[in-house]
Amino acid sequence: MMRTRPLKVALLGCGVVGSEVARIMTTHADDLTQRIGAPVELAGVAVRRPSKVREGIDPELVTTDATALLKRGDIDIAIEVIGGIEPARTLITTAFEHGISVVSANKALLAQDGAALHAAAEQHGLDLYYEAAVAGAIPLVRPMRESLAGDKINRVMGIVNGTTNFILDKMDSTGAGYQEALDEATALGYAEADPTADVEGYDAAAKAAILAGIAFHTRVRLDDVYREGMTEVSAADFASAKRMGCTIKLLAILERAADGESVTARVHPAMIPLSHPLASVREAYNAVFVEAEAAGRLMFYGPGAGGAPTASAVLGDLVAVARNKLAEATGPGESAYTQLPVSPMGDVVTRYHISLDVADKPGVLAQVATTFAEHGVSIDTVRQQGKDGEASLVVVTHRAPDAALSGTVEALRKLDTVRGVASIMRVEGE
Amino acid sequence: MMRTRPLKVALLGCGVVGSEVARIMTTHADDLTQRIGAPVELAGVAVRRPSKVREGIDPELVTTDATALLKRGDIDIAIEVIGGIEPARTLITTAFEHGISVVSANKALLAQDGAALHAAAEQHGLDLYYEAAVAGAIPLVRPMRESLAGDKINRVMGIVNGTTNFILDKMDSTGAGYQEALDEATALGYAEADPTADVEGYDAAAKAAILAGIAFHTRVRLDDVYREGMTEVSAADFASAKRMGCTIKLLAILERAADGESVTARVHPAMIPLSHPLASVREAYNAVFVEAEAAGRLMFYGPGAGGAPTASAVLGDLVAVARNKLAEATGPGESAYTQLPVSPMGDVVTRYHISLDVADKPGVLAQVATTFAEHGVSIDTVRQQGKDGEASLVVVTHRAPDAALSGTVEALRKLDTVRGVASIMRVEGE
Repeated sequence: MMRTRPLKVALLGCGVVGSEVARIMTTHADDLTQRIGAPVELAGVAVRRPSKVREGIDPELVTTDATALLKRGDIDIAIEVIGGIEPARTLITTAFEHGISVVSANKALLAQDGAALHAAAEQHGLDLYYEAAVAGAIPLVRPMRESLAGDKINRVMGIVNGTTNFILDKMDSTGAGYQEALDEATALGYAEADPTADVEGYDAAAKAAILAGIAFHTRVRLDDVYREGMTEVSAADFASAKRMGCTIKLLAILERAADGESVTARVHPAMIPLSHPLASVREAYNAVFVEAEAAGRLMFYGPGAGGAPTASAVLGDLVAVARNKLAEATGPGESAYTQLPVSPMGDVVTRYHISLDVADKPGVLAQVATTFAEHGVSIDTVRQQGKDGEASLVVVTHRAPDAALSGTVEALRKLDTVRGVASIMRVEGE
Repeated sequence: MMRTRPLKVALLGCGVVGSEVARIMTTHADDLTQRIGAPVELAGVAVRRPSKVREGIDPELVTTDATALLKRGDIDIAIEVIGGIEPARTLITTAFEHGISVVSANKALLAQDGAALHAAAEQHGLDLYYEAAVAGAIPLVRPMRESLAGDKINRVMGIVNGTTNFILDKMDSTGAGYQEALDEATALGYAEADPTADVEGYDAAAKAAILAGIAFHTRVRLDDVYREGMTEVSAADFASAKRMGCTIKLLAILERAADGESVTARVHPAMIPLSHPLASVREAYNAVFVEAEAAGRLMFYGPGAGGAPTASAVLGDLVAVARNKLAEATGPGESAYTQLPVSPMGDVVTRYHISLDVADKPGVLAQVATTFAEHGVSIDTVRQQGKDGEASLVVVTHRAPDAALSGTVEALRKLDTVRGVASIMRVEGE
C-alpha cells in the first residue's frame, strides 16, 4: 500500500555528507519511495553560507534559519549533519519538541549528550537514529542493538578512525616517521589541517563511548573513556612490533569485566599480531570485532568515513525512521538498564611491551626482573641487546592490571641502572 | 514502560539450534524482558521424539502436535527451527492464519517458497524474520535490507557454507585431496554423514537466492541460481592456484548487470587472489562482501553455523518481532518491486583458468590461441610446460561472457592436438 502524501525531510547542514544525502534523495527517489512505502521530499536545507552554489539543490529550499525550518509545521524528519555540539544539540531538541524524528551523524554530540537526547526522543514518542555516527557506512549500530539484541556482547575491539589508520598503515609499510606519514595523509585529504581530534584519539573515544553504551546496555560518557593518542608512535616502535610479528593500530576496546559487574572503555595505540584480522585493515578503512556469548566472534569491515559512505548510513536510517513514522511506531531507543559502572583504566587487564635503555653491566636484568615481581607482573619474554657500553632491554609482560603495569614502569624509571624508558606499548589481540 | 503480561513463544523443533534457543530464553530471560519491554515465555515446544531428555526444558511444555500448539489461541510468536520444506511450510502458514508472527532459520524453505510465505505474512499483518537462514550469527539479512535500504547494492560475493570452506581450507593448507579433507571434516563434525547438500552447493545456492532477492529488491528463485559443487576440486587445482598467487573458495556471487536491467546469481568454486579478504577466511567461518554504490565495499565475517551462533540470530529476530508485536507494527517485508529478471549463467562475465594436456609439438599454441580468438575470448597469460613428449598449457583469460568461455572449452576439446582438458576454474575477486 503506497501513500502518496510525501514525508517531508529537513536537511540540517549541507557539507560533504549533506550534499551527498541530498543528491541520493534526488537521484534515487523512486527506490526510496518503494522501500519506505511513501515518497520522501527534501523540504528544506539549512546552511550557514546560502550563497555557496550547491549543485542539484533547488535554491528555493535553502535557508540560514534552521530553527524556523523545524518550526514551520510540516517537517516529519530532520537529518542533522552539521556536527559539533552547538547548534546541533539545540536544533535536535527543537525538532523533538515539534514532533520531528531525527537522523544524526554527530558522534561528538551523541557521545556527550546521548542520554539526554534519547530521553527527549522517547518523551515525544520519536526516533533518534545515528548509524552514521560510528564507522561511516559500516552497519554497526543496528547490528549491535538489533541483530545481537538476544545475545550478550562481552568485547568490542576495533579500528574506528580512518585518518589514524591511514597514518599508521603508511608508517608500517614505508618505515616513515609519524610526521612524514601525517604530512602525506594531509596532502591526500585523509587528515584535516588541524588533525588533533583524530590523532589524539578524541574522535575514536566518542565512537567508543557510543558503542560501549550499545554493547553493554549501559551509559558510557565520553569522560569514562580512557584515551591516548598516537602522536608518540615512532618508526622504532614499528620495528619492535615487527620483531614480535605484530603491527601497531589505534584501537578502541570495550570490555565487560570477568565478573560481569563492570565495563571498561579505552582508546590507545597497541601492538596486535599480524595474524589478527584487524592487522590487515589498510589505509583509511575501519573494522570492528564484536565478541558475543552465543554468536562468537564477528567482524564488520568497510569505509569508515567519506561523503558517500556516511550518506549511505544516513539514508538507511532515513528509510527506517520514515517507515516507523508511517507505522506510527518507533524503533529501539536507548537501552541502559544494566547500569554497569565503567571502571578506570587501572583495572583493565592488558600486556605491556616495554623498551628500556639500561647500563650494560651485570645484575641489571636481575634488578629489572625484581621490580616486575614486586608489582605482581609476570614477564613473558625479555630480549637484551648491548653495544658500546649501552644496552637495551625489551620486556613483554603477561596479562596484568594496567595499574600494576604502569606502577612497574614508574618504579623502573627510578632504578639507577635504567637510563630511560624508550617506549611503552600495550599488546592486544592474543 | 514495561508490560507484565508475557508474549508467548512456540518453539517448533528442538535440535541443536532449538535447544540453544530454549536455553538462552531461560538463562537470559531478564535481559530479553528489558530489551523487548515485556517478558517472553516459552509456552510450548513441538518435537518429533518427546521421550528424548531435553535439559532445562520443562517436560510439560513438550508436545508432538505442533499444529495444535499453534492453534491453541495464546501464542504470539513461533520460532521454526525444524528445517526442510515440510512440515515447516504448513506450520508457518498455520501460524500466520492464527495471528502468529514467525522467526525462521529455514534457508531451504525461504529460498523455495519465500515469496508465498512473505505474502501470507503481509496478508495477516504479521512478521516473517529469518536472519538465521543465511550465514548463521553474522548479521547480514538485517544490514542488507535495513542498513543499506537507502543505497544500491551492485554485488555480493561470499563464503556462505562453512563445511565446504573447512574442506577447501584443509586442502589448501595441507595439500590433501578432496576425499581426505572431507573425511577429516566428517570426523570433526563439520560435515554430515551425507554431505551432498553442502559439497554440491545446494545449501549455498539456497542462501544465494535469499540474499539476491534482498540485495536487488527482486525475486530470485532457487532454480534461478547457477550451481556447481566443489567435489571436483583437486590438489592439482590448488597447486595451479598457488602458482597464480590464489587460493580456491566456494563462492556465492550475486551481481547486477552493467546496464542495471538484470541480475545474476551463482555458486561455484573459484580462484581468488590471496590478497583478497575472502582468501583468508579459514576453517568453517563465513564471510560476505557487499558492494554498494554509496557505501563502497563492506565485509561481514563470523561463524556461519552451529547451535549457539544460529540461536543468537534467532533471538535477535525474536526481540525485533516481539517489539513489533507490542507496537502493533511490522518490520520490513519482502521488497521485490524492481522485478529484475535473472539472467542465465552464459551471460555472466568472468575469467577462466584452463589447464590443457596437449601434444608437445610446434603449432599447438597457435592452434589453441586461434580457438580462443574465434570465440572472442582474449587471453591474459599462457604458461607452457613440456616433458617426455607430453605438454601442458595453462591459459588464464581476460573477462568474457561465460557462454563464450565455455564455448571455447568445447572447441578446445575437439582439437586433435588437445589430449584433454585437465581442469577449468573461474577466477574472481580482481
